[in-house]
Formats: sequence, structure tokens, C-alpha cells
Amino acid sequence: MSKDNKIGVYNFVAEPFHVDFTGKLTMGVLGNHLLNCAGFHAADRGFGIAELNENHYTWVLSRLAIELNDMPRRYEPFSIETWVESVYRLFTDRDFALVNKDGETIGYARSVWAMMSMETRKPADLIALHGDALGDYVCDRECPIEKPGRIKVAQDEPVADYVTKYSDIDINGHVNSIKYIEHVLNLFPMETFEAKNIRRFEIAYVAESYYGDTLLFFKEEKEDGSFDIEIRKQNGDTQEVICRSKVVLI
Amino acid sequence: MSKDNKIGVYNFVAEPFHVDFTGKLTMGVLGNHLLNCAGFHAADRGFGIAELNENHYTWVLSRLAIELNDMPRRYEPFSIETWVESVYRLFTDRDFALVNKDGETIGYARSVWAMMSMETRKPADLIALHGDALGDYVCDRECPIEKPGRIKVAQDEPVADYVTKYSDIDINGHVNSIKYIEHVLNLFPMETFEAKNIRRFEIAYVAESYYGDTLLFFKEEKEDGSFDIEIRKQNGDTQEVICRSKVVLI
Repeated sequence: MSKDNKIGVYNFVAEPFHVDFTGKLTMGVLGNHLLNCAGFHAADRGFGIAELNENHYTWVLSRLAIELNDMPRRYEPFSIETWVESVYRLFTDRDFALVNKDGETIGYARSVWAMMSMETRKPADLIALHGDALGDYVCDRECPIEKPGRIKVAQDEPVADYVTKYSDIDINGHVNSIKYIEHVLNLFPMETFEAKNIRRFEIAYVAESYYGDTLLFFKEEKEDGSFDIEIRKQNGDTQEVICRSKVVLI
Repeated sequence: MSKDNKIGVYNFVAEPFHVDFTGKLTMGVLGNHLLNCAGFHAADRGFGIAELNENHYTWVLSRLAIELNDMPRRYEPFSIETWVESVYRLFTDRDFALVNKDGETIGYARSVWAMMSMETRKPADLIALHGDALGDYVCDRECPIEKPGRIKVAQDEPVADYVTKYSDIDINGHVNSIKYIEHVLNLFPMETFEAKNIRRFEIAYVAESYYGDTLLFFKEEKEDGSFDIEIRKQNGDTQEVICRSKVVLI
């Protein structure tokens, strides 16, 4: 299979309500587009959610890392390219490139996915289930950004809390992956985004949260000026980690 | 001009993160699509925001009323049709139809827009500014739903409050019109949307709110079972009405 056939290309326009106060596409909307592109690309190759669901499996996003030099502005066309970097027993790595209106690549993203049995709720063995079928789509295009790294928050005083609401919940009854991105960035004051751009955004999904859960947000500035953020769910007296995120601003 | 040329038709698909826990497109996403279609239709006819901005004018959405028999489900294609119903001195009425994957019209919407001078912040005289140019696009297609009505909230105890955050703010520095729709529907518990569908959703935009504003939500159940909602902004000791909304569930 040629490299071209392995890379999916999808076109978008930065809609007026999808840009922030600086006129740039929001990270949540970009994340939504990336996940849609992953879905289109997989569906076109016989590994979409619909096909998987028929056999009682589904894709679960484990990690997402986005690194950017720039963002599309309001009304600008842009495109997203996506390809499969590797397939392991329990995970597959999918990469993305963000291409601006002039055809320049202005960012990349990496994602890590697991396949889960909807009956046992356990991860599926990708190699045993699909043999080389998934491997056929592996593409050797380079994704020149670091893999998702370690995010560690020792802080024990939350900087914010939030009770999840109707608009947070997806068709699976979980808080949707994109809403966590919005909630994380809402921890920063406007002045941050007036002065700086998000250079890198990382999120690791650890456990699910549900309607009415109280989410606690812990935020820690690191020595290198980046921010590590942990979202925990209050379960009675204990706290459960829901996701971790890293935000690098320049 | 033929009726066909006066009606714009735009195609969409219900994306996975754009449906709620019942698998139906959310009202906020539908609202976003309606406003985008208004923008496309106006731009194609020389009355888009970009053209207006060059002359220091802009469109301001005053009211939106949506009435539905059904909503598109996850992954379903659907389309939105839009046309201009009438042009008055200070307002123009734009209508919409929502068409499902089978070509059936499953809903309609009405919107009221003003044109504002970006210098004086005052409404412009559409007839004086554009003569018959806007009137040429008026279409006699019927929009068989009631016009936006009166919304009245006497209640003085807020049911919720919310401090606006980064993700609420649009390129103009205002809380974006779509976010108000989300915040209004977040006043209802999940059980409401498990048991009922939104038959009609209405919103009237009265004043702007900004980053860091404290919004207070007042909600009143009417004799006919509908809900009137008012969002007010706390300004020191006084409160200013920001928008009013009506939700009819069946």
C-alpha cells in the first residue's frame, strides 16, 4: 500500500463560534476534529466504531498530545492529516498533522488508543483479534513531537471544583473527552491566553466520570513553567483520578 | 429571482461529540449550525459579516426560536435550509428548516437580526443603508412555527450561578450566543431529557456579558408546563438582564 493511501486528509473551516477571544481555533474544537478524523480514517479502512460495535468492541482514547506553532484563525480553511504509526498488542498509536490555509504544517498530534470489549469492559488484544489487518495501515511518516510524557501532580488543594452537567455527557453516559479539555483550559485566566499561546497540550484519560460527579481540579506549575493538572472525582471520602493534563505555554 | 435561489441548503453530519447522552444532536450544536448557515447564506449574497465589517457594520442576533419534532442521531446526515422572511427598518427575520436523512423536514427555526454600527454601537437602518438590495432576497416560503413570544420571569431566587470562563468568550470578547444555550439547558437534570424531548427552544439576547461576570439563572415553570428562564448579570448591588429563554418539553 502506498504511503498516500495510508494517510487520510480532511478539510475544515474555523467557524466563528469555534474560535476563542483571540480569534484562534480553540483546543477543544481542534481535539474534536482530531477525534473525528481518527473515526473517519478508521471507518474508511473497516475499523470504525460502527463495525467494531457490531462485534461488541469499541475504541477508547487513552492519550492525546498536541504541539502547535500556530492555530487557524476565524473563517480560515485548514486540514488535518492522520495515519497509524504503530500497532501493539493492547495499544495503537495514531498521529496527526495540522495544515494551515497556505499548506504549511503548523502542528502535530499523537494519540494512543485501546480497543475494549463492550461486554467484559476489558482491553482487547489487537494482534490476536485483527492479525496483520491493522498492521497493513501502519505508515512510516514521521511525527516530530515528543510522545505523551509523565504528568505528576502532588498538590492536594484543588484550585477549582465542578459538578458535571447535562452538556458534559456523551452517548455512553460519560463526561465527553472534549469537555475535559475545555474544563482544564478554564483553569487559566484570560490574561494567560492574552500573553501566551498554547505550545503543547497533553491529556491522559485514566477513568470515567458521570453525570452529577464532583470533579476536583489540581494544578501545579513545574520548574520549566509548564502546568500539570489532575482531575479527580470525589467518591465519598476518597478521590479517584479521572485524567491528567499538561499545558505548555509560550 | 426564483424561490430556489433564495433558499440556501447546507449539509451536515451529527458528529459523535455533538450528540447528548440520548444520542441526539444537542440544541447548542444545532444553534451553532443555524448561525453558521445564516452566515454562509448572507456571505453568498454580499451581506456577510466580512463585507459588513469593511464598512464598520455587523449582524447582531436578537432572537432565536427552534421548534422540533425530532433531532438527527449520531452519524446521521442532515441538512439545514435557510431564507430571509422579511426586512424591516431595524430588523430582518431569517427562517430555517431542519431536514433529516430521509429528506423529511423535522423542525423549523426563526431568527431576528439587527445590523449594528461598530462605531456608534447603535442599530443601523436596513432600508436606508441597503435600499431594496436586502429585500430582493425575501422569500415567501412558509415557516409554520410561532414567532418568538414574550418570556417573563418574576422569580427572584436564582436556581444557579456561574462565573464565565475562558471557553465562554468569543472573538468579540462577549459570552458566545451558543454557550448561553448550553448553560440554560444545564439547569435541567438528566432525568428531564431521559423522559422528555425539547419541543421548542427560544432565546432572546438582551445585553452582553463578559469574562469573569457572575451570571445568575432564574427559572420558572409556567402553567402550561413550559419553563421561562432569565439570565441576569450581577453588577454590584444591581442585576442586569442578559438573556431570556423558554423551553417547552414534551
